[in-house]
Amino acid sequence: MNAVNKLISKFDSGKHICVGLDSDITKIPKHLLKLDDPIFQFNKSIINSTKENAAAYKLNLAFYEKDGIKGLRTLEKTLKQIPDDILTIGDAKRGDIGNTSQMYASSLFDHFNFDASTLHPYMGKDSLQPFLDYKDKLNFILVLTSNPGSSDFEKQKLSNGKFLYQEVLHKVNEWNKTNNCGIVFGATNPKELEENFSLFNNLPVLLPGVGSQGGDLETVVKIFRKNSNKNFLINVSRALIYADDSAGFADKSALKLIEYNSKIDKIERS
Amino acid sequence: MNAVNKLISKFDSGKHICVGLDSDITKIPKHLLKLDDPIFQFNKSIINSTKENAAAYKLNLAFYEKDGIKGLRTLEKTLKQIPDDILTIGDAKRGDIGNTSQMYASSLFDHFNFDASTLHPYMGKDSLQPFLDYKDKLNFILVLTSNPGSSDFEKQKLSNGKFLYQEVLHKVNEWNKTNNCGIVFGATNPKELEENFSLFNNLPVLLPGVGSQGGDLETVVKIFRKNSNKNFLINVSRALIYADDSAGFADKSALKLIEYNSKIDKIERS
Repeated sequence: MNAVNKLISKFDSGKHICVGLDSDITKIPKHLLKLDDPIFQFNKSIINSTKENAAAYKLNLAFYEKDGIKGLRTLEKTLKQIPDDILTIGDAKRGDIGNTSQMYASSLFDHFNFDASTLHPYMGKDSLQPFLDYKDKLNFILVLTSNPGSSDFEKQKLSNGKFLYQEVLHKVNEWNKTNNCGIVFGATNPKELEENFSLFNNLPVLLPGVGSQGGDLETVVKIFRKNSNKNFLINVSRALIYADDSAGFADKSALKLIEYNSKIDKIERS
Repeated sequence: MNAVNKLISKFDSGKHICVGLDSDITKIPKHLLKLDDPIFQFNKSIINSTKENAAAYKLNLAFYEKDGIKGLRTLEKTLKQIPDDILTIGDAKRGDIGNTSQMYASSLFDHFNFDASTLHPYMGKDSLQPFLDYKDKLNFILVLTSNPGSSDFEKQKLSNGKFLYQEVLHKVNEWNKTNNCGIVFGATNPKELEENFSLFNNLPVLLPGVGSQGGDLETVVKIFRKNSNKNFLINVSRALIYADDSAGFADKSALKLIEYNSKIDKIERS
């Protein structure tokens, strides 16, 4: 199944939460530290307890790269734990000149076999093209991010009257020739989310920023509901994977995920 | 020695070429393929033959990550071959929300011990702050890149009359509190290079795009000469490391580097 279809089949069954495996050795339950490869053990438990209800898993490459070779081994082992019908996002925020982006695309898609990437638009179309050439994968391009720094450039107004992030959104629609583009739109920007809906078309929207960063799940879901759009994937990392630090941590994460799904379901049925 | 000082001491001795180790198994001399870890053997030979005359080495992480664990091992071994007084740039073009950027910074600076990074500005200040917090390192922030896609967003005009890349340049100056910022300015944009000189202040400028991408070394150096500015680091990758594919390939690269240095020296003395 190609990446977009994996995601749509989850959306169709009411699943919209992406579990963000930003797994950090200083934050996982202490009892795991005595095991071999604690991060892998943590990820494996979280995946096992959430896989029935997750729409996708997002692995933030920074959290693995920081441990070099050891970290990459953990990443590879973790990916093998994720069932094949669930979208895996390599959250790497890449973007470089063509021959370099080709290597990054090959790393994410061929070597690690991720279903999806996240990409920086700053360098323009040819910097993303090698990713777009993978027709069965999905590329979430940064439009408006969830962090305070989104005001520095993304929310700058252009002389054509659009904000920079709107110009990026416009271009992503233009580049989405083979239906393998999505966008990143921070859940901390509900006003902008509402205002730009007409430009989303059928692009899957990855929304980071719910939970620790202050974005509100219900606000965001209501905006999609109002627009009869089900193409949303809400990422929750810290607030979900660190729900508890006892021996039963993974069950607590599973419950937390079910809570999120119920909240979404309630709004969707309203 | 901190990163900026390493670089300045090279500039003072007339060295301005950064050797870009974009080492690709399909492009290195064929006779190396029968050795164990051909990319490492290639890098080692290039480093040995160019270290007397190089101002810096830039390792493009994409070229190593694409081979996963094996690639990272090659990267680590390669870094050990570079003399301590020569700046090493981890060309990774990172940029993410704070806690993630912290991990990327730790990966490049603590784990791999690179002297310098390259960064995507799109997500704004807090996405770069964890890198800027490393006071003894150097961070080259993308201002105007060398690729055709630089027209898509970087050269968009803002409502304040500046181009986006000029706004980024302006902000980098503001963020450069501890003298650990530099900028990336593509050598394929000589007109913009000339026009924006007054905003460069004492920022080291990394110029990619000379050689295979069509940027002209002499044009660029003359602009710096005219402005009595020696803070330029010209990256050459493919045109230098693949100068030859015979058994004597590394000597040819060494000669090529000497040629570049002579050209620069001639302009500097004019």
